[in-house]
Order: sequence, then C-alpha cells, then structure tokens
Amino acid sequence: MSAPIDFYFDFSSPYGYLASEQIDALGARHGRAVMWHAIVLDAQFQPQGGMKIPAALMRTEYVRRDVERSSAYFGIPYKAPVPYPVHTEHAARAFQWLSDRNPDEARSFAHAVFRAYFVEGRNIAETAVLLEIAEALKLDREDVSAAFSDAATKARLKAEIDLAEARGVFGSPFFIVEGEGFWGNDRLPQLERWLANGPF
Amino acid sequence: MSAPIDFYFDFSSPYGYLASEQIDALGARHGRAVMWHAIVLDAQFQPQGGMKIPAALMRTEYVRRDVERSSAYFGIPYKAPVPYPVHTEHAARAFQWLSDRNPDEARSFAHAVFRAYFVEGRNIAETAVLLEIAEALKLDREDVSAAFSDAATKARLKAEIDLAEARGVFGSPFFIVEGEGFWGNDRLPQLERWLANGPF
Repeated sequence: MSAPIDFYFDFSSPYGYLASEQIDALGARHGRAVMWHAIVLDAQFQPQGGMKIPAALMRTEYVRRDVERSSAYFGIPYKAPVPYPVHTEHAARAFQWLSDRNPDEARSFAHAVFRAYFVEGRNIAETAVLLEIAEALKLDREDVSAAFSDAATKARLKAEIDLAEARGVFGSPFFIVEGEGFWGNDRLPQLERWLANGPF
Repeated sequence: MSAPIDFYFDFSSPYGYLASEQIDALGARHGRAVMWHAIVLDAQFQPQGGMKIPAALMRTEYVRRDVERSSAYFGIPYKAPVPYPVHTEHAARAFQWLSDRNPDEARSFAHAVFRAYFVEGRNIAETAVLLEIAEALKLDREDVSAAFSDAATKARLKAEIDLAEARGVFGSPFFIVEGEGFWGNDRLPQLERWLANGPF
C-alpha cells in the first residue's frame, strides 16, 4: 500500500475549507488514502516570528478578497463567515472522537462543519450548532455531546496536535506525504506532481 | 492599450526571484506589458499582526525546503543564498535610477541581480558586486555608483515604496492588474485566468 496523505486542518481556516473540498479527489486520482486530522491552531501553536495563523493574515483586506477569489477560482461555494475566527476546540474534539471510531463518519462530519461555517454562516463554536450537524448526519447526539468535554477526548486531541507539531505542521491546511510537508492549497499542484512523478 | 501588470519585488525575496523568471512570459501570453518595481520590504513595511516578511517566514525550515522544491517545480535554477536576507537598498536604488531612464536596461539589471544572489551566491548587498553586474551589462559604472547614495534617487525610491504601500502591496512578489492585487507566485494561475477570462 502506498503511503497515505495526511491532511491537517483547523475548522476556522478558510484555506483549510477550500482544501477539504479538493483533497480527497486529488488522493483518489493517485490511489492514495487521505487521513484527516483536525487541529486547533490558536490553542497551541506559536508560529515563529510572532506570526499568528490564520488570524493575523485574515485581518488584511487582501486575504478577505483572496479567499473569495480563490473559492471562485476553484469553483467552491464560499461566504465570508461572521464572526471570524471562532474557537474550534469543540468541533475538533467531536471530530477526533468520531475519527477514532469511524473515519468515514468523521469525514462527513468535518465536511458538514466546514460548510456550515463557510457556506451557511452558522457559528461552529456553538455546541448547539455542532449537535444539529451531528443529528442531521444521524450521529448519536449523546456521544458527540460527551466528546465536547470529556477528559480522555481532550487528552486525545492534545496528543494529536502535539504529534502534528512534532511533524512540522504550523498552519492550515497542511499536507504530509512520505515525510514531505506541503503548506496551503497553493501547494496542491506540487503535491500532485510528487504523487505522479515521485520526489523532486 | 490594455492595462499593464505591475510587478513588485524585493531583491532578497526568493519568491520574488522565482516570479521574476516567469512574469514576462505570462504577460506576453496575454499581450500585457509588465512594469517592474523594486521595493525594499524591511526598510518601510510593517506588515500587520507582527508578521515580518520575508525574514520571519524564511526562518522556518519549511520555507527553506519549499523554495528549493518550488524552483524545481518551475524548472528555475536556485541555490539557497548565504547570507540571507541581505539589505537591498543599493540594488533597488540602482534599479530605480535605471528604470526611470531605460526600463529594458533596468529589467536586465534586475534579472542579473536576482541571479547573482539566488544562483551564483554573490552578496548583492555589496556595492562592488552590484557594480560588477552593471559593468557586465555595459552600464555606466559611475552613473550606477552615484545612484547608490544620491539624495534624489533615495527620495525617488522612497516615493515608489510609499506608492506601493498605498496600493496595498505588502509582500514580494506582488502583482497588480486593473486594480486587483495578487500576492505570491502561488497566485500566478489566478492572475492568468483573470487576464484570459476577465474578473472573477
């Protein structure tokens, strides 16, 4: 089996959302599984040089426009969310809990959370919104609700984020395949060449 | 005449170098002139959120590898320069002086400066190196030497950088066409679609 693509994202990252709508098809074109990993950037990451991702970037008018334009370029629906950014711990914990039990369900949940925030304008920091999303997917409401706050899931997510950091992840989206890191949607063409032709 | 593409770059920006090797061909494919503008990022720009471009980014191992990989992806020669970054005021002033008199000569000078730093490993902060580059292009050594320090050229470059800032430029490379800003080589495909199909 070929190495999978690890896909790291934060649920409040617009570029992470745009990646989430593209990465599985990219993996499928090259026979690679894609492993999804929700991380929480502002909870733990302290990027170098005082750069806070993605909040500092998003403050600029340029990025506001760039995300709009990029979504049009890729043909992906997008509506700038308000408020922005939002806390994503609860969404990430629910995702992690699901992912450890049923990765396909977790992926469906992740798509629904991203679209709720970046298309429908719902506030995914609110547990009520996350529970509505879970119910619409026929996930067990009590299981998901428990995952928001139970100590084991918190510790499990923290370990996942520590692991991401140890692997060099510092932003969203971030992809790793065969030890090579690719940061941003901008690098999907390079990731694709890597998969097609090998390392360069 | 269609609006030209304005191309802003800092001579110590590796991504600016990669753009410099591509932008004229892109413009030519769409019948657009490209106006080159040397700016000096660390002299004036105070990007938002404490983010200093490109020094903070370059500190990361990721970016070191990314520039190598991107140069291979685009088929552009590249050798990581030491020292990095370097002061680019003298190079930018010489460029500005030439650009006001003969844009084609200025562009040849810019290509030579970029390649001296990012391919040949020469320190383009040193005026001696810049003069060697000028002489190899049969430019007047005394004219270029005067441009390094004369007050009028300093003021001229500062005004150019103020203008860039007023237009929303905050990094290198940065492109503007028809009022639309595109930051980074990563956005060349979007710039190209803009030129081919109009705004989106």
